[in-house]
Amino acid sequence: MKKKSATYRRGRRRLSAIHGARGIEAIDSMADIAPDLADMVYEWPFGNIYTRPGLDLKSRQLITVSALAAMGNSRPQLKAHVHGALNVGWKPRELVEALMQLAIYAGFPAALNALVVAREVFRERKVMPRRRA
Amino acid sequence: MKKKSATYRRGRRRLSAIHGARGIEAIDSMADIAPDLADMVYEWPFGNIYTRPGLDLKSRQLITVSALAAMGNSRPQLKAHVHGALNVGWKPRELVEALMQLAIYAGFPAALNALVVAREVFRERKVMPRRRA
Amino acid sequence: MKKKSATYRRGRRRLSAIHGARGIEAIDSMADIAPDLADMVYEWPFGNIYTRPGLDLKSRQLITVSALAAMGNSRPQLKAHVHGALNVGWKPRELVEALMQLAIYAGFPAALNALVVAREVFRERKVMPRRRA
Amino acid sequence: MKKKSATYRRGRRRLSAIHGARGIEAIDSMADIAPDLADMVYEWPFGNIYTRPGLDLKSRQLITVSALAAMGNSRPQLKAHVHGALNVGWKPRELVEALMQLAIYAGFPAALNALVVAREVFRERKVMPRRRA
Amino acid sequence: MKKKSATYRRGRRRLSAIHGARGIEAIDSMADIAPDLADMVYEWPFGNIYTRPGLDLKSRQLITVSALAAMGNSRPQLKAHVHGALNVGWKPRELVEALMQLAIYAGFPAALNALVVAREVFRERKVMPRRRA
Amino acid sequence: MKKKSATYRRGRRRLSAIHGARGIEAIDSMADIAPDLADMVYEWPFGNIYTRPGLDLKSRQLITVSALAAMGNSRPQLKAHVHGALNVGWKPRELVEALMQLAIYAGFPAALNALVVAREVFRERKVMPRRRA
Repeated sequence: MKKKSATYRRGRRRLSAIHGARGIEAIDSMADIAPDLADMVYEWPFGNIYTRPGLDLKSRQLITVSALAAMGNSRPQLKAHVHGALNVGWKPRELVEALMQLAIYAGFPAALNALVVAREVFRERKVMPRRRA
Repeated sequence: MKKKSATYRRGRRRLSAIHGARGIEAIDSMADIAPDLADMVYEWPFGNIYTRPGLDLKSRQLITVSALAAMGNSRPQLKAHVHGALNVGWKPRELVEALMQLAIYAGFPAALNALVVAREVFRERKVMPRRRA
Repeated sequence: MKKKSATYRRGRRRLSAIHGARGIEAIDSMADIAPDLADMVYEWPFGNIYTRPGLDLKSRQLITVSALAAMGNSRPQLKAHVHGALNVGWKPRELVEALMQLAIYAGFPAALNALVVAREVFRERKVMPRRRA
Repeated sequence: MKKKSATYRRGRRRLSAIHGARGIEAIDSMADIAPDLADMVYEWPFGNIYTRPGLDLKSRQLITVSALAAMGNSRPQLKAHVHGALNVGWKPRELVEALMQLAIYAGFPAALNALVVAREVFRERKVMPRRRA
Repeated sequence: MKKKSATYRRGRRRLSAIHGARGIEAIDSMADIAPDLADMVYEWPFGNIYTRPGLDLKSRQLITVSALAAMGNSRPQLKAHVHGALNVGWKPRELVEALMQLAIYAGFPAALNALVVAREVFRERKVMPRRRA
Repeated sequence: MKKKSATYRRGRRRLSAIHGARGIEAIDSMADIAPDLADMVYEWPFGNIYTRPGLDLKSRQLITVSALAAMGNSRPQLKAHVHGALNVGWKPRELVEALMQLAIYAGFPAALNALVVAREVFRERKVMPRRRA
């Protein structure tokens, strides 16, 4: 895998736009065990997929949050992508709606566990959805 | 479960708006084995969830398609919801982008199998995405 | 694996009691590809687990149907165990209740797909649950 | 969603009968992030499903424990439902039998991980199954 | 995504070495719905992963067959990779051993369903494992 | 289940050869909740499957690590089997290659989460793969 390709740099910028410095650190921290893994993550999902035209970034984040919450076995990634969803413009209330809807397809436990992850993110960022009057 | 409640009627209208007459038939056809099931489907997911404010129907369809494709074990529902996604305004090309992105999170087999389902739907409706020049 | 052990014979009788001659045939038919597989199935799950004291066979069949329907990726086994559940005393209406309840935990698609399998079994055996008046 | 409906009150009583005060607290604690979620949980799974005739509550708890243990991705809910299963009359030894049987269908890791959850519950309640002489 | 890159050509050769002409056709046939998908498959999994040093191709095929059989929701890919495993040197008997072992971790239904897929492949190629005397 | 059978002793030796004293302790520690479970684990997966001829132990460990990492819901077992894979001769770098490859089939989150587990094991054993120059 060629390092520092244009695809690599484009992917690293895109990952940074979605997940911020914390996302870059998380990926780079894998270098001690899998030196090529960071390159692979920057180049392939972020350099090749998330930068494709034909679907806006906000829709792409909703797809990812929905998939991760439905599969229910990737809590760290779900947390990172709830952050990412807020970073690209989704409102906490909208994400709560999305996760509640998943109870229909993935069951209540998957939806409840994803809502607990989302609540952690909302509290860290002090963006808890307001209780309706 | 009270039949013909306002929630039931609202859910039946909502399901019809997403899936059309074929969706209503599919649900009603379960009545021979589970007479209350259709009521439950109209009232709960469609009467209560899909009609909630706070998230538009187009986003809701994207959530559902993403979750079903990622879970990978509900082909009939995925097919029905690809139809539904087209019915509420998604373009074939956009859905292809969404399913390709899922390869990152759910793996290539889940993405490829979902694309095969989408292709069936696009062919039935004669809305295959055009090949780029 | 010792053939024709007491465990093997006990397991074969137990599988026959649950699934009938068709179940024995299904297991024996794997002998062309995996000659020891039938022995393994008779000895371990059926000779060792399904014959354990401490839980009655009717409860054991409910456990299996619930697990297979919730996991959603083993249609042939689910069909065989719906047959088995009827064979050990469950009523079609009770199994329909069980599968409807799974919508809460495994989502509607898993529940609906399992109900379609159950309907196939009920029709083969002409034991469709009667519609309530 | 209409609050304090008869279905809501019936579901809240049913959830309390299965899970006790701790279950009510767990559901109510989600109100800060998803104000309607508690209503939805009381009304739909507990007010509509767990109160249906046609299957006794003890069987219903066995279905739920089996499904959650087999799916293997909802530890908090599994723990709550092992408590619930004891509350509606299952013996620790019977639940151990149920979880051991799941090794056949969901594999040993799912069964072992569920047994570890059950052991936590049994220890909290001081109802560890007695070792046979 | 740059077409006809060195990575693309390397990946196409590698996929051909594992799956033969039928594999190339299967991937190319997706071009009508997702024109860039074939490029993505050739470049990323096959051009970047399957060609990495550090693990021989025979081990890589065993990993893939094990993962697909354990996940249990990607029958077409499992079938293609059982073909691939035979193409890179695995014996039918060894693959049967591998799939039987998965019963421990993924449960008997996943193992049995994978063995049925393997049997289809062995019959097509007339390489059924011989029954031991 | 007959205690101390030849199969039991063979399985206990085999488990010890793969997982060492810690593995034996982990299985024996389940005796307080499920007295027969240890016997079952020694006799069936280890006494009957892992001791079968026709596939070497090193290949068997690769199958297990691949399956557990792909299923993604059995972290304690994955950790034990990464230890086991090192014990039977796999190199850390080879296991990293195996887990990276799983991103293709099970998605990046499953692969990343498995790599984090592997890193824990490598650090405990001070066998981190060396960074290439």
